Amino acid sequence: MLIFSRLIDAWLEEKILKAIGRAPIRIVLENGGSVAVPNVAPVATVIIRDRRTLAELCIDPEVGFGDAYADGRIQVEGDLEKFLEAVYESWPNAPAARSWYARLTSKSMDLWQANTLSGSRRNIHRHYDLGNDFYKLWLDAQMLYTCAYFPTPSATLEEAQTAKMDHVCRKLRLQPGETVVEAGCGWGALSLHMAREYGVSVKAYNISHEQILFARERARQEGLNGQVEFIEDDYRNISGKFDVFMSVGMLEHVRADRYAEFGEIIHRSIGDTGRGLLHFIGRSQEASFSRWIRKRIFPGANAPALRRALEIFEPRNYAVLDIENLRLHYAKTLEHWLDRFEHSQQQVAAMYDARFVRAWRLYLAGSMAAFRTGSLQLFQVVFAGSRSEPLWWTRASLYAEPEIEIEKIDEKKRWMHAMS
Amino acid sequence: MLIFSRLIDAWLEEKILKAIGRAPIRIVLENGGSVAVPNVAPVATVIIRDRRTLAELCIDPEVGFGDAYADGRIQVEGDLEKFLEAVYESWPNAPAARSWYARLTSKSMDLWQANTLSGSRRNIHRHYDLGNDFYKLWLDAQMLYTCAYFPTPSATLEEAQTAKMDHVCRKLRLQPGETVVEAGCGWGALSLHMAREYGVSVKAYNISHEQILFARERARQEGLNGQVEFIEDDYRNISGKFDVFMSVGMLEHVRADRYAEFGEIIHRSIGDTGRGLLHFIGRSQEASFSRWIRKRIFPGANAPALRRALEIFEPRNYAVLDIENLRLHYAKTLEHWLDRFEHSQQQVAAMYDARFVRAWRLYLAGSMAAFRTGSLQLFQVVFAGSRSEPLWWTRASLYAEPEIEIEKIDEKKRWMHAMS
Repeated sequence: MLIFSRLIDAWLEEKILKAIGRAPIRIVLENGGSVAVPNVAPVATVIIRDRRTLAELCIDPEVGFGDAYADGRIQVEGDLEKFLEAVYESWPNAPAARSWYARLTSKSMDLWQANTLSGSRRNIHRHYDLGNDFYKLWLDAQMLYTCAYFPTPSATLEEAQTAKMDHVCRKLRLQPGETVVEAGCGWGALSLHMAREYGVSVKAYNISHEQILFARERARQEGLNGQVEFIEDDYRNISGKFDVFMSVGMLEHVRADRYAEFGEIIHRSIGDTGRGLLHFIGRSQEASFSRWIRKRIFPGANAPALRRALEIFEPRNYAVLDIENLRLHYAKTLEHWLDRFEHSQQQVAAMYDARFVRAWRLYLAGSMAAFRTGSLQLFQVVFAGSRSEPLWWTRASLYAEPEIEIEKIDEKKRWMHAMS
Repeated sequence: MLIFSRLIDAWLEEKILKAIGRAPIRIVLENGGSVAVPNVAPVATVIIRDRRTLAELCIDPEVGFGDAYADGRIQVEGDLEKFLEAVYESWPNAPAARSWYARLTSKSMDLWQANTLSGSRRNIHRHYDLGNDFYKLWLDAQMLYTCAYFPTPSATLEEAQTAKMDHVCRKLRLQPGETVVEAGCGWGALSLHMAREYGVSVKAYNISHEQILFARERARQEGLNGQVEFIEDDYRNISGKFDVFMSVGMLEHVRADRYAEFGEIIHRSIGDTGRGLLHFIGRSQEASFSRWIRKRIFPGANAPALRRALEIFEPRNYAVLDIENLRLHYAKTLEHWLDRFEHSQQQVAAMYDARFVRAWRLYLAGSMAAFRTGSLQLFQVVFAGSRSEPLWWTRASLYAEPEIEIEKIDEKKRWMHAMS
């Protein structure tokens, strides 16, 4: 029996070394042996409680690791962030490198979590309706749950979220009196900001019940409920004509096989004369989101390759005007979120349990590692209809102070006149 | 016979009305009838000399019009630029809208002009080796034959071409001592600018014999021949390792089915740690270049849909950091070129003939109309390898004055330190 057990250990060891590639990690089986890539100083030690966990890891590393970490059956000694970065750096993106089991369950997960109208509602409910009190513990004061824009790396999270809202509004050169539709509005901060600071009218869609209630209450308190309408409905039911289509952090919930339909919805809303912005988590190469994240945290989530996302615009002849990659800003945003989350862990544990705390720590730290290592990217895409007016002459005005901004608008009028 | 001829006229008239769509154009057949879209004031009148020309127009409008205009068998009375804009606005992009003849000859043109190593040399020779004296008549003093960057619309062409060179260098944050490979270097201005102003070493490739001779002579005169090497060879033969891959206005000569190979060449040159920039004429939707332009002016030319161009980066996991659309700057650049060309038309006619002058006028004015109407776009794509250092924190420094730029570099060091 001892021989048999040693044979299994040797086989498992070989599987694990293959899975971690050249990652500087030491893996220890409690009451058993340890594995590490030779001649590399490990950044962290992974302690695996038992052979069952080890076996699960071998069959399905992504879900196996996440579940075991949440359960406490796996512990990471040392720097969790550096450990996750090392994993992302050595983990191949290509689906072919995954185990047959992972590939099979990824497919069935796709079907199970299909973002049909009712499927989307179920998926969104599971994540966003965890309770506003939970998100208040670690998001900024205005509750923005998307990548911030840090004018300098030392900006606070609150400053950076406000700067992000201004960044997207200025990219679209919102003008007073214009109409905007926002697809997926979270807790409503951006819709309210656009109305308050840029004088536009906004119709905002979201299928998270808790978020819509929160947003409506805030609009009432700010006296903006005449200017901003929060609608509890799916983006596929958007109706009306608008000057601008805005969507920050919702494309992640749209499956790639629905991009043509998404493009149709945009076109139905702003036609050939409008303009818009999509802000979304993407990738350099096609790959699925971590199956553990899709299973336990974020059902139905998808981060497309940039090329794939352009399928939204091409059939309707939308011109891409500007794409900015802000992955380092998402890493920084997650750094703030994780820090606040760690400071609130006792409250989170009291609201849920220790397992929930560990799962969310892994999710936040893992996402940060993914953005730091470039496994995930954050894209802002500005696009315009084939018969829209030019938006800007150069992007310089986007980086000028607001005083200079006004001069630039005059300058814009001047050159538009000069061109005609 | 009269009845027969009237029947033909009626049939041709119907075909033409279909072809011009709703364009505000009046078409007159010399010694015959005239056709115009009802209730629209025409911006120009097209005078067609004879029935043969009319028939050619119907069979193959693109090549038929270009050839007849160059021959003088078609004249445009009124505003040629406005006429061409009207044509582009009413002309559908979709190949399905083209005649069977156009589709058939487009395919055979693809084969005939295939950019094999020898095919490319033939194609490039036909366009770029027309003689430096010809291009000197209407390009800027440094001979840049690509879209300029106008900090303001009133900048001169010389200022705008220098600003373009700085714009691409600053986007890549070239540092003294780095190595750059330039694929398709024209008359060498950018390579010399990078070496002189940014202190980098450059290896520059071009298969146009006349351009390489010109560039080498300029490097010698400026004493930069130790720092810049001009190589008369195809980009597919690029050898060596570099920090940066730069290509401004060459992708138009690479067929889309060779993008994977192009990505391989980039990867061979800069690996996973380098960065690069592609500047190219593109589109919002897939379509072929005007067949007349490919037949008479620019053999082997191709302007890809942006999505298609991203096929270069995706297989090698290059991250897209920044995409800027500068189509209005190309329209402005062409405005300057056309103006200078018109002022030199007697010299051009003396070098070639009146037919050549008309053909090039149509090419320049038609390209301007295509960029003005959005039928063509100009993209600058900054990309970086999966293991490259971050290039910037925000794009703000790109728009700051050089004095501030230095502070920003310190700032960059600071946050890179802060992140580690």
